[in-house]
Amino acid sequence: MSVTIKKIAKDLHLAVSTVSKALSDSHEISAETKARVFEYAARLDYIPNPYASSLKKGKSKNIAVVLPEVADSFFSVAINGIESVAQEKGYHTMVYLTHEDIKREQSIIRECRNGRVDGVLISVVGGNAQHEHLRDLYTSEVPLVFFDRVCEAIETARVVTNDYESGYIAAKHLIEQGCKRIAFLAMRGDLAITHHRQDGYEQALRDKGLDVRVIYCSDKEEENLALLRDILQQPDRPDGIIGSIEKVTMQVYTVCHALHIAIPQEVKIIGFSHLQIAALLNPSLTTVTQPAFEMGKAAATLLFKALEKKQDVKHEQIVIPSVLVPRASTHTTIYADKL
Amino acid sequence: MSVTIKKIAKDLHLAVSTVSKALSDSHEISAETKARVFEYAARLDYIPNPYASSLKKGKSKNIAVVLPEVADSFFSVAINGIESVAQEKGYHTMVYLTHEDIKREQSIIRECRNGRVDGVLISVVGGNAQHEHLRDLYTSEVPLVFFDRVCEAIETARVVTNDYESGYIAAKHLIEQGCKRIAFLAMRGDLAITHHRQDGYEQALRDKGLDVRVIYCSDKEEENLALLRDILQQPDRPDGIIGSIEKVTMQVYTVCHALHIAIPQEVKIIGFSHLQIAALLNPSLTTVTQPAFEMGKAAATLLFKALEKKQDVKHEQIVIPSVLVPRASTHTTIYADKL
Repeated sequence: MSVTIKKIAKDLHLAVSTVSKALSDSHEISAETKARVFEYAARLDYIPNPYASSLKKGKSKNIAVVLPEVADSFFSVAINGIESVAQEKGYHTMVYLTHEDIKREQSIIRECRNGRVDGVLISVVGGNAQHEHLRDLYTSEVPLVFFDRVCEAIETARVVTNDYESGYIAAKHLIEQGCKRIAFLAMRGDLAITHHRQDGYEQALRDKGLDVRVIYCSDKEEENLALLRDILQQPDRPDGIIGSIEKVTMQVYTVCHALHIAIPQEVKIIGFSHLQIAALLNPSLTTVTQPAFEMGKAAATLLFKALEKKQDVKHEQIVIPSVLVPRASTHTTIYADKL
Repeated sequence: MSVTIKKIAKDLHLAVSTVSKALSDSHEISAETKARVFEYAARLDYIPNPYASSLKKGKSKNIAVVLPEVADSFFSVAINGIESVAQEKGYHTMVYLTHEDIKREQSIIRECRNGRVDGVLISVVGGNAQHEHLRDLYTSEVPLVFFDRVCEAIETARVVTNDYESGYIAAKHLIEQGCKRIAFLAMRGDLAITHHRQDGYEQALRDKGLDVRVIYCSDKEEENLALLRDILQQPDRPDGIIGSIEKVTMQVYTVCHALHIAIPQEVKIIGFSHLQIAALLNPSLTTVTQPAFEMGKAAATLLFKALEKKQDVKHEQIVIPSVLVPRASTHTTIYADKL
């Protein structure tokens, strides 16, 4: 109980509970009484506002989750993992979207300083090139945890999956299914996870003496459909494709359907994806599935360790492995015919 | 330029820019100088915090978007529409998820009062039964706009689609494709949009003298799969299904695949859905597609009309029609065989 509330109650001859309710703008209190209480509270410099109390306690009870997008199923599931922890701790989760725009990320991160939120979980837009805004946050008092997409230049707590191994396993699976011309679809940029996946893919191909073929996609849908259409009509078109981004993998499906290229008979496809309905696609999609919920949960748990227990978690790194789920899109015989 | 900053600079014999940077906790300023500035600023009751200035101006430059979930593609697209407007206005969009939990919605809405956000866009969890929290927000100074899922008991600005007509059109389409036993899958509760869709469906069936069959689904996945499995194994099983919720429609697909019930030959399916990859499903899914992006954009535009121009938008209602997109899941002949 605040001393000020008691004082206001005494001075205005009101019950403490009435003042408290008036200050929290309860509908139980008349507008007239509220006005009296607010006016007097203002004179005492008592500000009945969640942020006023956050200024005192240094706690907003908000955490920020900064994500590239929510249309990607990985992120929409990861949010649930984060919230499962935050809710238990009595914190509000605010989701901010960067839409893969570094300027937007910079502006959001700037806003995350100075008391607006108590901690930040982020899956970054860029890689190591532009990270001053992250470094500024890092050197402030706001705990910062990376998940999935990390900025390697900043050594703070992180939760990742085994991207190198996942890239290797995906390529190995296609090789075992008889593919000879395996392409890797990536987004240009210097995202560490893309590099790791690509490194794993390249190693698997080198181990078998196969040619590496990395295709950089556009983030504009129309441009990318045209690019894929072009690639899939070439005489030496890939007989195996690894889509490192969910959206791009769906575009490969769209183009194959349009061009009547049979999956998996003519081209086999694996996607890095957390699509719950991968099994319902035509044909069902083989995925490398990241542990999205677990990663979100682990990241939030690290953040609260820093927030509540004031522990230094900056050097903690948690790796949760991904899983290959084989389905019809990479299968050679029976399974594919059945579906 | 704040008068206080000038005064602090003068009294402490510092440059104004140094004080300004110190107050925004810049890494360019030494810890010692920052401490001096903060201490003196506190004495002058000048609080260098975004919320402190928001207390003065009554503006947090945040808007809240309160949604049931982001795994549903409608909401993930609607967010983009909302953000396209908010960003242009220089506002931050904070996304809060209720996970279809009325208690969570109540707690979030409570937090949205008292200066934390300047306005609220919401797609509600419940219907008319429990809405005291929404009424409290409504009667406060925070502008409130409903989109898609409205609470009809509260007359405030709203952006909706033509749910009644959509339900009618979906049922009519199935009737035209020869279906006789058409089921409507709904969630129990008193969500207005579900009722309107259901009313439209029922009217279309009555117009043709067909029996109405509404099936209430569980929000627990396992329970619902068991329910659907049961219904689809009955001798009088539906030959047409309308899924009013995206998630449930995907569960119907899962059960049909598992039981080897051929879509569309044995059962035809329409989903209320905004899935971008509906065309890639096996078979491609006929959808009633809501204008998610446009609805989000229109809702945000209404909110800013109230926020910036102080216009009363409480009686505004915008209806943006949905579209039926026929695909293989309801087609009788050629198209279905081809896919």
